Amino acid sequence: MNKQEQDELKKEAAIKAAGMVKSGMILGVGTGSTVAFFIDALGKRRKEDGLKLKAMVTTSSRSKKQLESWGFKVGKLSDIDHVDLTIDGSDRVADNFDGIKGGGGALTLEKNVAINSNKIIWIVDESKLVHRLSGFPLPVEVLPISCEQNFRRFQAEGLKPQWRMDNGKRFVTHYGNYIIDLAVDPIPVPHGLADYLDHTVGVVEHGLFLGMCDEVIIAHSNGKIEDKKKD
Amino acid sequence: MNKQEQDELKKEAAIKAAGMVKSGMILGVGTGSTVAFFIDALGKRRKEDGLKLKAMVTTSSRSKKQLESWGFKVGKLSDIDHVDLTIDGSDRVADNFDGIKGGGGALTLEKNVAINSNKIIWIVDESKLVHRLSGFPLPVEVLPISCEQNFRRFQAEGLKPQWRMDNGKRFVTHYGNYIIDLAVDPIPVPHGLADYLDHTVGVVEHGLFLGMCDEVIIAHSNGKIEDKKKD
Repeated sequence: MNKQEQDELKKEAAIKAAGMVKSGMILGVGTGSTVAFFIDALGKRRKEDGLKLKAMVTTSSRSKKQLESWGFKVGKLSDIDHVDLTIDGSDRVADNFDGIKGGGGALTLEKNVAINSNKIIWIVDESKLVHRLSGFPLPVEVLPISCEQNFRRFQAEGLKPQWRMDNGKRFVTHYGNYIIDLAVDPIPVPHGLADYLDHTVGVVEHGLFLGMCDEVIIAHSNGKIEDKKKD
Repeated sequence: MNKQEQDELKKEAAIKAAGMVKSGMILGVGTGSTVAFFIDALGKRRKEDGLKLKAMVTTSSRSKKQLESWGFKVGKLSDIDHVDLTIDGSDRVADNFDGIKGGGGALTLEKNVAINSNKIIWIVDESKLVHRLSGFPLPVEVLPISCEQNFRRFQAEGLKPQWRMDNGKRFVTHYGNYIIDLAVDPIPVPHGLADYLDHTVGVVEHGLFLGMCDEVIIAHSNGKIEDKKKD
């Protein structure tokens, strides 16, 4: 499948997701190439169907800009009570709907939006599907003050830490922290690892999104769009 | 007991703690009125006994300044492997050596130093001693992005959240975050609450220091200095 065919497929999945948004909702919008198609589909619904959202939050300045170009007003998470529905991408999705996110480095904001969302739909292409969480390094956002100690700790635990780099320097998050990518593959006992990372002093957030996603819209390489819902 | 008598007592406890520091150590130094006396006692040991430390980290710019005025070189936590001994104060100490810290708002750095310390000694006056953790609101450092949601969450859980204020505005930590003080008193099941807070997305750190302290030097109001060691 060439890039154009792939984009057509992503667009189709994005249109399906945009159709699930209802007027009056507080909507969360993620980031990524498929989400970019989703925003365009949503913008068209605003223009053509008169879609009116109650409020909207997003996880990146890129999505914010694109949403605003369609006339949407993007607010802050702290100003709203909750999010009715969040549409986002994911770097990996397991059979049980658990995911790894944070390839773009915005995992902390993404998780804060997710935890305050009543419903989460991820739009992904087939290549993101895995049986168990694997095939993608797990991002961990760490405070610089104790980052070296935590790096060594992860090393000692066999988690294969790697510094996220950006032009030869350590990548710095929106909050002034670093990202350590754990290349352990597959992720051994995701809930156990999440628990360990939650308890690790100096860890701000990690990319394990467990039990959060409710529905996945999948663009298959055979051209089919699958809508998979959690029981 | 008047202020002068109280200071004399704190000074005596501080001198006792300074006597426990050995040349060649990597030392962690906290903050507070008793720790200030400790730094002076340590400075005298440097001048008079030729005390030489391998490295030194601290939890506040105030302590850093005072240490440097005695000729000590203060480094960064991330530059060292571990801390041999940390001397700090605590806002409350329970019978089992668990503590509440963070009244000064530096809990995140304090806990990062603590977790990397092989041994921790707290110097406190008698008023900080409690049977079970109580009598002091528990500070929780939260990311601004989801702070309102977490405030309401704590409220719903009966934890009596209060915004830490500073001249009529929300207090901002060194890391650009807010502090929510939980006025729940006494702390119900400290390990359970710590676990809940560790798992709460948007919480950077909290002031429960459980199972970390090894020894407490207590300045009693009757003039006695008690050295209490964990079994």
